[in-house]
Order: sequence, then structure tokens, then C-alpha cells
Amino acid sequence: MLRALHCQAVDRPPVWMMRQAGRTLPEYRAVRKEHDFLTVMKTPELACEVTLQPVRRFDVDAAILFSDILNIPEAMGQGLNYPPGGPRLDPVIATAADVTKLRPVEPAQDLAYVGGALNLLRQALGDEKALLGFAGAPFTLACYMVEGGGTRRFSKIKPFLSCQPEAAADLLNRLADAVIAHLRYQLASGADAVQLFDTWAGELGAEDYARWAQPVNERILEEVSEDGPILLYLRNGGHLFDQSLDCAARGFALDWRVDLARAAGLLGAMDPPRCVQGNLDPIGLFAPAADIRDRVQRMHRAVGGQTGHIFNLGHGLVPDTPIEGIETFVQSVFELSGSP
Amino acid sequence: MLRALHCQAVDRPPVWMMRQAGRTLPEYRAVRKEHDFLTVMKTPELACEVTLQPVRRFDVDAAILFSDILNIPEAMGQGLNYPPGGPRLDPVIATAADVTKLRPVEPAQDLAYVGGALNLLRQALGDEKALLGFAGAPFTLACYMVEGGGTRRFSKIKPFLSCQPEAAADLLNRLADAVIAHLRYQLASGADAVQLFDTWAGELGAEDYARWAQPVNERILEEVSEDGPILLYLRNGGHLFDQSLDCAARGFALDWRVDLARAAGLLGAMDPPRCVQGNLDPIGLFAPAADIRDRVQRMHRAVGGQTGHIFNLGHGLVPDTPIEGIETFVQSVFELSGSP
Repeated sequence: MLRALHCQAVDRPPVWMMRQAGRTLPEYRAVRKEHDFLTVMKTPELACEVTLQPVRRFDVDAAILFSDILNIPEAMGQGLNYPPGGPRLDPVIATAADVTKLRPVEPAQDLAYVGGALNLLRQALGDEKALLGFAGAPFTLACYMVEGGGTRRFSKIKPFLSCQPEAAADLLNRLADAVIAHLRYQLASGADAVQLFDTWAGELGAEDYARWAQPVNERILEEVSEDGPILLYLRNGGHLFDQSLDCAARGFALDWRVDLARAAGLLGAMDPPRCVQGNLDPIGLFAPAADIRDRVQRMHRAVGGQTGHIFNLGHGLVPDTPIEGIETFVQSVFELSGSP
Repeated sequence: MLRALHCQAVDRPPVWMMRQAGRTLPEYRAVRKEHDFLTVMKTPELACEVTLQPVRRFDVDAAILFSDILNIPEAMGQGLNYPPGGPRLDPVIATAADVTKLRPVEPAQDLAYVGGALNLLRQALGDEKALLGFAGAPFTLACYMVEGGGTRRFSKIKPFLSCQPEAAADLLNRLADAVIAHLRYQLASGADAVQLFDTWAGELGAEDYARWAQPVNERILEEVSEDGPILLYLRNGGHLFDQSLDCAARGFALDWRVDLARAAGLLGAMDPPRCVQGNLDPIGLFAPAADIRDRVQRMHRAVGGQTGHIFNLGHGLVPDTPIEGIETFVQSVFELSGSP
């Protein structure tokens, strides 16, 4: 996994899956019968256990810490809850004064459970598997913080940007500081690499992304890459890909709607070349085994040795994904050779 | 509006807004206090009234029939209801046998209320305003029919395509037949032009769109364009735009994430040139007036006279949009000249 991330030769491409730990697995649901979500996230032994579950079951090449991007808003002072309808943050951020009240994040204190889980994972995994940390990007975190939870319309965060631009810039910069501190802490605690998730970037047009989200993402990529390799994921961000290339990301995680062959060509031509990660439609795992195998082989040919490639999904696993579909995907990658 | 749609010279670009009739307007909410949604849709006088409301209030250049894309699944035999969580179709389509049971649509009988409303609107509008009809595209309708309503994950429709490809093709072709009949009926009943809404096209990767949705869309565009001009809207479809160009659409309605300048250049270079419609982020109407005016002027310059341009949003108006924002948008277009 780390060789591919650095665009070095490999025997076969590595594979892991976004949201590989979690509701899809019966062994995870068994843990959750005993403990609520926040308890699992904040107890290093439990977080370590559920992080390892998909590695044991599927033998994937990387473990990604079981956690949640909303641990940063919580560490900054918002109340975090997980009622049935999805996460809620309370009170919402609505004014410049609300932003000013947010606390800076001291990861070794506020997020010590993350470091604890990563320490345990580092020992458990040995050197055979890569260990990944992650954080949400500032715009995505700001969406949750201003909307108070998930949203389909973004009708609070977008007006917050346009009507209160100074408060919005302050919020995004504070979030960037917190994300940088958190990702560095994860690298220092045993993570081999980290991924920055800008889950809602794709809701922004190209101009708005360039104005609001891109500068803070670039600062994070620049500063964190001094400590370790970092991947950038822009969900639904095909329209933002070209303008995002000039940054310090070691790799780019693609949504399934981005043309993998074109992206691999552009990333392979950079100096130094960057890695491409992705990008099977997660619902593609519901397809017959022959279709999954065919897609994997076509993805492999699409990258065509142009650059390092880490197989993954274009978005996270969804809860009802058939286990056999996941197994077929991972096994199909295992059967590939290093070059197509 | 119709001159711009045919890429002919205009004094200023025309403007209308997707979902301009509906929950955003207090006069609509007043009608809905007396009548439920289906009653408004199916009563020509009421549908005519709410269709005219935004034309009266904002003086936009086109009226688009107040209706719902789910009238086709209902006419084919699914039960349609609008509980608080969003539309529900019952029973869901899950097997080839379910598809076989669907009825062909006879618009003059099954959708006579649409014709009735368009007849009334044609008389009320005179020749000063364009009158638009619409339908959902087959893939989008199939999403609702197989999922039973709205969805975020598409974890029934996508497996239906991959695991039951023959039933899926049968469903999409039956829907294409119904959509063609319905759009022709609307053109025969007084609509000057129609728009095909593929709201969920953007959930498909380029290959899946090409396999499943594009062939039926192209058949609809080809057959309907014999009777009148037709616009194609692919929500979140920036990654599908280039592959969609070679079709009979008179114009392309763009999501706000598509580069307007590039699209206008491609459409203007076609033989014959095609019209571009769009594409302000609907949440952009929550911004300060100066920002809205600035965006309108930049959109006008982006098209730069390369082709016909109809101002619109990149997606439908959302319920809480400030009326002043809508007024500023429309007025800003009224202040433009024919060429930038």
C-alpha cells in the first residue's frame, strides 16, 4: 500500500475500502449491541477491535481507524449526538461570535482516544498492513457545524459563506488548524498515512470551491505532508479535479464518477507522479461476481501502469452491501499483477 | 425564450427558474392550505393558477407547468402518495413480472389533466411568454419506482440494473415510450417546448450512464424533437456532458457544477448550434444582492455570445429561498443586453 502510494513498483495493486469497518459487518454489529457509537469511537480497545475486523475478514492491505470526522467539532466545543436520523451538533454555528467561542484543539488531550487506538493498532498490525488515519476537511466540517447535522440543500452553510464571509473564513481557518494538529497527531501516533475527506466539496461550484474550500485544503496538505503522506478525497468532485492538482497531496482518492484513466494519466505526468486511489461505485458490490471481476480488471487496465494505484471504492461501503460482493472485489484485486 | 432556445438574436437573454412554481411562494402556500398536492396537480384550474403565480410575481419569460414527474409511474399503475417524508410509490418494482404488469400510458386519457392545464395556460399566457412542459427521464423514474420513493444510496435500483438487466431494459424502454407519448401530448396541448429531467443521472458513472440511461434519453430526444424543441437536464451530470452532446436536444440545461463558458463553447460549435440553459446554484439566491448581480453578469460574460443562453438555476428553487433574492436574479437578467 505504501509503495503504491509513493508510485513505486508493486507485485499487485493494494486494496482497501472506505468505511470498511462498520455496519456492513456482523462482527461490528455484535460490538454495537453492547456499546453505543461514541463509546466504540472513544474506547481505544473497542476502536482498535472494529478497525481490525475488516482486515481479518478480507485481508485488505490497509486498516483505517474507526472514528468519525465530527470528533473535531466536538473537541472545539459543540455537543455531538447520534440520534436515529443521523449526527447532530448543538448549538449550531450561526454568527461570528459563535465562531469566536470555539476552542482550539489539543489532540493529545482532546483526542487522546485516537492516539490510544492508533498505538494499539500499530502493535497489532505489525509491518504487514498499512495503518491510515483521517479527518474531515474544513468545508465539510463547517457544513455539519452550521447546518447542525446532515443536509441535502446546504441552505445554511452556503448563505453563511456569502453573507458572513469574514466569520466563514475565520471558521474555516480554525478548522484547518484543528485538522492539521489532528492529522499530525495521528501520524505521530502510528498512522502510516492519512486521508483528508472533503465529503461535501462536490456541492460547491468550481469558483466557490476555489474561494472557500481549496485554500484551507491546500494549507492542510502542505503542512501535514511534512510529517507523512496524505491523500485528498473530494466526494462528487469531478468538476474540481483539474484545479486541485497543484497541491502537496501524495495521492488523490476519486469518486466513481471521475474518469479513472484520464485521472491516472494526469497524476502520472506530475513531478513527482502522484498516486490514484479508487474508484468503484460502492453499489457496484451488489452486482453479480462476474461483473465485479470485470470492473476490477477494466479499472486495472484504465490505470495502465501510468501511476501508482490503490484499489478502493468511489465512496464508503453502504450498510447492506453483500459480504460476497466485498470478497469478490478484494479477491479480484489479489489476482491482478503489478502491471496490466 | 424561444428565440434564445433556437440560438437566434435576442434583446436580452430570457430567464425562468426550475421549480419557480411552488413552496417558495406565499400565494402557492395559500392554495395548498385549501387543496392537497395531488388535487392541485390534477385540477387544471388549480395547476394553471399556481403555474401562473411566478410569472405574475417575477415576470419571468416562461411558465413551466406545475406538475410532477411521478404522474407517469402512477399512470402505469403504481400507487402515488405524498406523505411528509417525500413521495412514495407502491408496490415497488422488484422483478421482471412487476415490470410486465405495468400499463402503457395513454396521455389523452391517463394524463388528461395535464392537457387541460396546458390548454388553459396557453390561453392565459398569450404569445408573450413561453409555455413549457416536462417529464422525468426513464432512469430517474425507474429510481423512484424500484426504490419506492426518494433515496440517497440507490442500493435497489443499481442492483436491479446489474442483477436483472433484461427486466431493467424492459422497464426503461416502457418508460421511454410513456415519456415520449407524454411529451408529445404536452406539445400538442399548447407547450412551446419541453424539458427532460434526468434528476438522478449524476449518480451513475459514465459507463453506466452510457449503458442504461443514455440510449433511452437519446430515443426520447430524437422522437420528441420531431414535434417541438426539447431541453435535456442531467442533474449533477458534469461528467456526462461531453458524451451526451451527440443527440437531438435543442438545448442543454446545466447543473451549477458544470463550467458554463466551456459548455457554451462546445454547444455553440455544434451544427446547428445548441442552446445552453442555467446555471446559478439555487442557494446562491440567499446571497447579498450585489453578489447575485455580480454572478449574473459573470455568467453572461462566460457565455459571451457563443450560443443561445437561457438564464436559469442549476437545480430547482428550494422552499426557503428569499423572495428578494429571486427578484434580484430576475431583475439582473432584465438589465443585460443581448450580447455581453
